[in-house]
Amino acid sequence: MSNIKPSLYTCLSPALLHLYDVSDSIVVIIDVLRATSTIATALYNGAKEIIPIDNVAECIKIGAELNAITAGERDGQVAEGLQYGNSPFEYPSSFIAGKTLVLTTTNGTKLLHMALANGAQEIITGSFPNISSVCNYLLSKNKNVVLACAAWKNKINIEDSLFAGAVVNRIKERFTIQCDSAQLAESLFMTARPDLYEFMKERNATHYHRLTKYHLEKDIRYCLTEDVAPSLPKYIDGKLVNGIV
Amino acid sequence: MSNIKPSLYTCLSPALLHLYDVSDSIVVIIDVLRATSTIATALYNGAKEIIPIDNVAECIKIGAELNAITAGERDGQVAEGLQYGNSPFEYPSSFIAGKTLVLTTTNGTKLLHMALANGAQEIITGSFPNISSVCNYLLSKNKNVVLACAAWKNKINIEDSLFAGAVVNRIKERFTIQCDSAQLAESLFMTARPDLYEFMKERNATHYHRLTKYHLEKDIRYCLTEDVAPSLPKYIDGKLVNGIV
Repeated sequence: MSNIKPSLYTCLSPALLHLYDVSDSIVVIIDVLRATSTIATALYNGAKEIIPIDNVAECIKIGAELNAITAGERDGQVAEGLQYGNSPFEYPSSFIAGKTLVLTTTNGTKLLHMALANGAQEIITGSFPNISSVCNYLLSKNKNVVLACAAWKNKINIEDSLFAGAVVNRIKERFTIQCDSAQLAESLFMTARPDLYEFMKERNATHYHRLTKYHLEKDIRYCLTEDVAPSLPKYIDGKLVNGIV
Repeated sequence: MSNIKPSLYTCLSPALLHLYDVSDSIVVIIDVLRATSTIATALYNGAKEIIPIDNVAECIKIGAELNAITAGERDGQVAEGLQYGNSPFEYPSSFIAGKTLVLTTTNGTKLLHMALANGAQEIITGSFPNISSVCNYLLSKNKNVVLACAAWKNKINIEDSLFAGAVVNRIKERFTIQCDSAQLAESLFMTARPDLYEFMKERNATHYHRLTKYHLEKDIRYCLTEDVAPSLPKYIDGKLVNGIV
């Protein structure tokens, strides 16, 4: 076995993704509030597969073709023509097990498609609800990693950076990290670690305000909780499936 | 006087500058290692003006036209055809007082020109050697602020983020901050505060390695020292001049 550690980079905004070579890396798509948390949850609860789509019209079309569940929100409401929202609480096992979910999100799906277009070797999604699964997988593969934050309309956000920092903190000993963004993210995580929710609130996180306006405090708390949905969403042939079976 | 506080945003990479409205803001260009530290120093030591240029050929041309001092480095060496380098120690008062310096830097100058092209209301440069002058100026103006990090070929770096975080930490009470990047930067600064130099070293900062390869530890230490060159570089008609006279 080689003694050379694989590299780990952190990309804090989709607008910076082109600076990283994803072609020989596992790319972890991070959209903590709430896309990748909901994806982890639905798959953990037995969803057959999730098809991420970047716009409502396409989501409706594919949902109809596959006779699948369609979901997505715009401005905090279920988007017109879709059936369900973006909350992880909408996808209990009793509802989602064995089903196909066609999910439209903006930032996360756009980033996933960018990573794909840039030739990513492999794509998985990460969130606090499945952080240990993600870290264990990255440790087991021993390949280069790019932690890619979905951000908000390309603006860096606290919650995705926090998750990237948490991953860096857990697995850094096994990677070569020559990436200042990874240091920024880890430093943020270490500061917030005692209470991620309170940190988001105190630091005036822009997304915290966006969601609490819609009374989604419960969603935020869930999305910041580790290992409540230990699945491993892997993107294969246009679909996210659970790599832990 | 209005009770509404002006806004403060932090932009961690030139590739994200388009996300911020600079047209009604004072933009602070930050290129800690070493462009804006050297600019602060040369102006503090009495330079008449500094003309920032983004390429060597233009630097040589303008230097000849103005019979001015030309300076700039590429890969840690004085660039061919130029006279001096990027180190603040090359510009003591005995040498630079009353003179015009034509300085070519890559990341910082590029960002300055971008801010200009985007219609920045006003442009100043900031660095630890003149941090109090910058903060006092921003507090006195009571206008919107964008702290703009030059980064390294668009990749976010630790040292510029640290400076942005230090400024946020000093002046945040007087601004409305709805900007997660400002929180990231401040959190990084608070972690590093006990010893910025050791932090850069320990955290494997990419630029720390780039410069120590050229034995520039002394430059790094100087560039992380507060208020050793309390000037206020203001960009007016293509030139940086000292706003504190």
